[in-house]
Amino acid sequence: MNAISQIGHRRGLTERLRIRSGGFTGPTAGLAPGNVQANLAILPAALAHDFLRFAQANPKPCPVLAVSDPGAVELPALADDLDIRTDVPRYRVWRHGELVEEPTDIRPFWRDDLVTFALGCSFSFEDALVEDGIEVRHLTCGGNVPMYRTNIPTVPAGVFHGPLVVSMRPLKPADAIRAIQITARYPSVHGAPVHIGLPAAIGIADLGRPDYGDAVLVGPDELPVFWACGVTPQSVIAQVKPEFCITHAPGCMLITDLRNSNLSV
Amino acid sequence: MNAISQIGHRRGLTERLRIRSGGFTGPTAGLAPGNVQANLAILPAALAHDFLRFAQANPKPCPVLAVSDPGAVELPALADDLDIRTDVPRYRVWRHGELVEEPTDIRPFWRDDLVTFALGCSFSFEDALVEDGIEVRHLTCGGNVPMYRTNIPTVPAGVFHGPLVVSMRPLKPADAIRAIQITARYPSVHGAPVHIGLPAAIGIADLGRPDYGDAVLVGPDELPVFWACGVTPQSVIAQVKPEFCITHAPGCMLITDLRNSNLSV
Repeated sequence: MNAISQIGHRRGLTERLRIRSGGFTGPTAGLAPGNVQANLAILPAALAHDFLRFAQANPKPCPVLAVSDPGAVELPALADDLDIRTDVPRYRVWRHGELVEEPTDIRPFWRDDLVTFALGCSFSFEDALVEDGIEVRHLTCGGNVPMYRTNIPTVPAGVFHGPLVVSMRPLKPADAIRAIQITARYPSVHGAPVHIGLPAAIGIADLGRPDYGDAVLVGPDELPVFWACGVTPQSVIAQVKPEFCITHAPGCMLITDLRNSNLSV
Repeated sequence: MNAISQIGHRRGLTERLRIRSGGFTGPTAGLAPGNVQANLAILPAALAHDFLRFAQANPKPCPVLAVSDPGAVELPALADDLDIRTDVPRYRVWRHGELVEEPTDIRPFWRDDLVTFALGCSFSFEDALVEDGIEVRHLTCGGNVPMYRTNIPTVPAGVFHGPLVVSMRPLKPADAIRAIQITARYPSVHGAPVHIGLPAAIGIADLGRPDYGDAVLVGPDELPVFWACGVTPQSVIAQVKPEFCITHAPGCMLITDLRNSNLSV
């Protein structure tokens, strides 16, 4: 992983300290502009190896940015001065696949066998698209990106298996080509799309009815472009129903000290 | 330009000597596998600067691999031991926009004011697609790639202007995404596509009736993918009707010593 820059650390730590103190408990979109934000999955060590194997075999939906030592609350590859128990605005605590609580601090739930996975998030590549001048529809509309369960299976590993979930952004053909080139440079945040046009070919019957997020209009001069989505690991974990796990609450991401541009290959 | 490798020189020179001696006068597809083949435009010096400006402003249809000194018959950036007057299997000689002859040797036509332009050719990126395991339909069918005049204008420069011509390859969506990534690495041979899906949006009314080349089937599970085409400069030159110019005959390319992989960025 890249060295952490001063600007990245200053912006990241400012927001983490505000969140850690309880001063912010909402969605993190727009915070620490240009810094990498991450999806979070915190699992008992007994499941950690299977989950990491699953992620390794499915790097597009599950791009691993960092894995903690068991019980450790730091992620030194992502930030200096980070406490994974307090630095996310809102968490979800799951027992046997049931959502039991949405705390803003997981110190009361912490266990010495917990392993934290930080996974890349599409915020990073959307930042690169917007910087290139490409309109990202759900951002224009102020909604959440539309997401769909597909008929594309993930590669199973250990107890983990299930269908690929994709996010969709409608783009004019020339912008779609440019977006493929740009996002291909960001393999650690889902990389290039997995599909373009022809939604039925991947088991999506109606673009107007996403399985998660909000529908957006696809114009007659546009193609729907589909990227592997970070909801995939969450939906796969939900199927396995581990006795205990913790994730971030939707939209309430971990703000790191890395810069989005650091992730470009 | 990259240094010329031994394998490239050996394969290139073998074919050029065979062509130079009159032993081969046909299309060059498949000759010197892996070597770069080039489109040729030979223009009087009075037009050369305008044409080079046109190519500079339109790098996708007109990727310049090399430009000769006026009157020179060598292109040292592309090959050792190359004579542009004899080393192409078949040429076309044009006067005032009219095709007047198709010789296999242009020494009788040579003038001291002629400037040779070697332009990148899609053979190079098709080689990269095939090596990646992607089916290239017109190669499978043994025909010429279908090409279409579009409603996309080129950037005019001096006397040169006209519409962009594109070549089309039908691909399944996942292959299309991969093909965009692969061809983006070859900017000197047309680079990434200019359009995908939605032919009407670029002025193509009927994919089954190409303006040049042979029609191919586009399956219901495929998208038409459009690349800027090396026929664009030829069609633009034809519109300008210069008093004299020479091109290669279609499919009868200049075989260089460069390897296709040398062109990858």
